[in-house]
Amino acid sequence: MTSNVTIPVLVNGKPVDCISSLDRGLLFGDGVFETLAVTGGEPRFWLRHLQRLAEGCRRLGLPLPDASRLRDEAAALLTGNDACVLKIIMTRGAGGRGYRPPGKAQPTRILQLHPWPELPQECADSGVRVCLCTMRLGSNPQLAGIKHLNRLEQVLARQEWDDPDIREGLMLDGGGCVIEGTMSNLFVVSGENLLTPNLGRCGVAGIMRTVMMELASSLGIAVSVCKLQPVDVEQADEVFLTNSLIGVWPVIGLGERAWSVGRVTRQLQERLSKLETEGTAWQH
Amino acid sequence: MTSNVTIPVLVNGKPVDCISSLDRGLLFGDGVFETLAVTGGEPRFWLRHLQRLAEGCRRLGLPLPDASRLRDEAAALLTGNDACVLKIIMTRGAGGRGYRPPGKAQPTRILQLHPWPELPQECADSGVRVCLCTMRLGSNPQLAGIKHLNRLEQVLARQEWDDPDIREGLMLDGGGCVIEGTMSNLFVVSGENLLTPNLGRCGVAGIMRTVMMELASSLGIAVSVCKLQPVDVEQADEVFLTNSLIGVWPVIGLGERAWSVGRVTRQLQERLSKLETEGTAWQH
Repeated sequence: MTSNVTIPVLVNGKPVDCISSLDRGLLFGDGVFETLAVTGGEPRFWLRHLQRLAEGCRRLGLPLPDASRLRDEAAALLTGNDACVLKIIMTRGAGGRGYRPPGKAQPTRILQLHPWPELPQECADSGVRVCLCTMRLGSNPQLAGIKHLNRLEQVLARQEWDDPDIREGLMLDGGGCVIEGTMSNLFVVSGENLLTPNLGRCGVAGIMRTVMMELASSLGIAVSVCKLQPVDVEQADEVFLTNSLIGVWPVIGLGERAWSVGRVTRQLQERLSKLETEGTAWQH
Repeated sequence: MTSNVTIPVLVNGKPVDCISSLDRGLLFGDGVFETLAVTGGEPRFWLRHLQRLAEGCRRLGLPLPDASRLRDEAAALLTGNDACVLKIIMTRGAGGRGYRPPGKAQPTRILQLHPWPELPQECADSGVRVCLCTMRLGSNPQLAGIKHLNRLEQVLARQEWDDPDIREGLMLDGGGCVIEGTMSNLFVVSGENLLTPNLGRCGVAGIMRTVMMELASSLGIAVSVCKLQPVDVEQADEVFLTNSLIGVWPVIGLGERAWSVGRVTRQLQERLSKLETEGTAWQH
């Protein structure tokens, strides 16, 4: 054990927090993960997360996860827990020769239950200030979009600021286009349009990003996936961030530029709240 | 435990192969590693590997490794072993909030002893065939050069071919320049010059790459670090690959292009053999 913190964990179904140092997840970041918000004891957008997990496995050439087993294990781990965070990690397990994966991988399946992070309601209500990170995102279409375990760029970007009033850092690609936040996706409202960066070359296609695009469409708002320069963000009428845990955070400051929380942002927050009280979370 | 294979391992000095699933090495690839050839019971180029490990830690903002403790642990693990591979992994350990590293990291220190891999002497003697990978290397100057744990690009590249006669795949950056092999550095001889790609934007600066450059200089061969296009490789007089385990492998085939093993390549192989019999490995 390298950590003194203990949280509920299942590793390949067993409640023992012990991974071999030969696991390719550790050696190479050879795997994918999902971070799910759990409210009322149920993981939000379960099906969507499972779908992205499977897509990540497909892209990396990992065996597809067994959805019903994952659900059973998640349900077992969640018993007695109300609001928390469920993290699912799938690695290629141990084996292979160097970088070459083994012919028949025996993946490692990890489920962790984290306490709900400190996410002040004020951030969603009054908005947050963000900065622009120096650290760039490398471009790689074959890895873009999926939530793989190679996340050093995000770690280094998150090290760039200490100011607790700055809640997120925006990251550019090598060409200077804005792609996302270190832990969130970015949307801007420009006139009647909702715009979000193209993630075809880098970035993580967040579940909440897709949900937002669907909600916007259902409200009759035109959504475009496009190239965004920093100046496009600065000139936008509204800016907001999304992820599975924060939902929607309005952006009210970037350097000298200040915004008030906009109408479209509020509309989408309200639609999301409504969606989250509908039906069973497992079914989304 | 996620692996049935057991090899000698020390995790933070203890002979128990057990890493917490909360370790940032697993969660984010937040760490660095070294792979050392052990011959005659001693790790080759120990000081150089330790120096690169320290440089990697510095770049990631990890506490610098305690060199004498690492040496003691390596020596203990190596007792009774002659030819094998020593792998050293340093991660940022557990902790922090999301991507944000903890204020005071408690790194995880892993030493593994692997059996010497199957590396036919024929590869060094008669040369190897290589292919050109489709997978590109993403550019990121802040991560370039160091041997960090984000190695999905190499894993996916190594999945591209199955032909056992092809021993290595060359990788290009996003701009189409040749950077390195999946597990090796690349050199070409063009006229009187030895050329190797610039690793300022991507790639791993191998220990054997530096050794080669020094050996070449000592032989009076002009060495240039430069941009190399695939056509430059094809038109080169000699091509070879280096890493700490393979030493120098002459390249004798890339697609339709064939080479015989060249004079400069042979000279460098001989100088390397000579160097490896000089002095104590720990001292290099």
